[in-house]
Amino acid sequence: MNLLPEKTVERLSQYRRTLLKIINKEKLHVFSHEIAYMLHLTPVQVRRDLMLIGYSGSQRKGYDIKKLIHLIGDIIDSRKGQKVALIGVGNLGRAIIRYLNKKNSNLKIVAAFDVNPEKVNKEVSGVNCHHFNMLPKILKKENISIGIISVPADQAVLVADSLVKSGIKGILNFTTAPLNISDEVFLEEYDMITSLEKVAYFSKKR
Amino acid sequence: MNLLPEKTVERLSQYRRTLLKIINKEKLHVFSHEIAYMLHLTPVQVRRDLMLIGYSGSQRKGYDIKKLIHLIGDIIDSRKGQKVALIGVGNLGRAIIRYLNKKNSNLKIVAAFDVNPEKVNKEVSGVNCHHFNMLPKILKKENISIGIISVPADQAVLVADSLVKSGIKGILNFTTAPLNISDEVFLEEYDMITSLEKVAYFSKKR
Repeated sequence: MNLLPEKTVERLSQYRRTLLKIINKEKLHVFSHEIAYMLHLTPVQVRRDLMLIGYSGSQRKGYDIKKLIHLIGDIIDSRKGQKVALIGVGNLGRAIIRYLNKKNSNLKIVAAFDVNPEKVNKEVSGVNCHHFNMLPKILKKENISIGIISVPADQAVLVADSLVKSGIKGILNFTTAPLNISDEVFLEEYDMITSLEKVAYFSKKR
Repeated sequence: MNLLPEKTVERLSQYRRTLLKIINKEKLHVFSHEIAYMLHLTPVQVRRDLMLIGYSGSQRKGYDIKKLIHLIGDIIDSRKGQKVALIGVGNLGRAIIRYLNKKNSNLKIVAAFDVNPEKVNKEVSGVNCHHFNMLPKILKKENISIGIISVPADQAVLVADSLVKSGIKGILNFTTAPLNISDEVFLEEYDMITSLEKVAYFSKKR
């Protein structure tokens, strides 16, 4: 299959999480309009995305929830799972580790990095924190493919450089510093200031 | 002026942050292609957004950085600033308070809320933490218009209900629970699992 559009992948991830929530309620099938309602989307959007991954439900019963969860997993997960490194064990870094590793997910943070002697060689919510200069060695040894950057903004470029040189495949950047890295590496950036300024703009119009 | 599209507001916020970074470097003007490069956008996109807010640069010198920063501020900021409440003082909540309040921003977290007796009535990075049942009273008294939700997912609906009933204008939801609230309130949601699953998907194709 060709690469899916970025927005479709985002929504598939959201569909799966929504389906995982409702499957516990002994519901076996779901309609596109139900998924759409829960995620503030249009039913047309949901049907279009699921058609893109080759799935169509029954008109009478809707989509088979279990099958759909598996199909989405086949597409967005890796069979063996993917290992993740987190760099920068401040409040945000710790929140991310706790949050991600308590989910029963295909993605697992297996190593954390910092330069603060009070953090290095200790455990943070079950993950070993190494000195940042161990990054290349540990990424290789553990076969880590994804890096999450949660350091102060002025160190983001340095950290990204080191990740790219160590052969990382994807980076999730939580700092305010936009990065310019090789196209070989997939980069996703999130800055909460943008989200908050957006909320502020639309709030003052209400 | 009519409401701008959501994506334009997001980019205006990013433009301003980028411009604030380069203005310290004694640069007075900037071209659309320079802004575009720093933010992984196309120059056409940048020019289109700035035309939407009625600004066009000089073809020879580009945009006047100072003027553009002010113009964006006039559009997305409120003259008096906007006050923000944060609910849920865990690791993520603490990270958000520190991060936002150290910026010299128009948006300030002025009150935090939790139910944990070890946190209530203490100060968190300069912000008072109140008991959650004080929310309606303090929102009104402080004239708070925006709420950030960083509680565990199973409490998100309860918190959002309380915010809406107390007359909040905008909500930024950092939990995994998608909310369905009144259209009167602007809602922005961010779930890091989606970002990470997106990075994972595109990483395994590289």
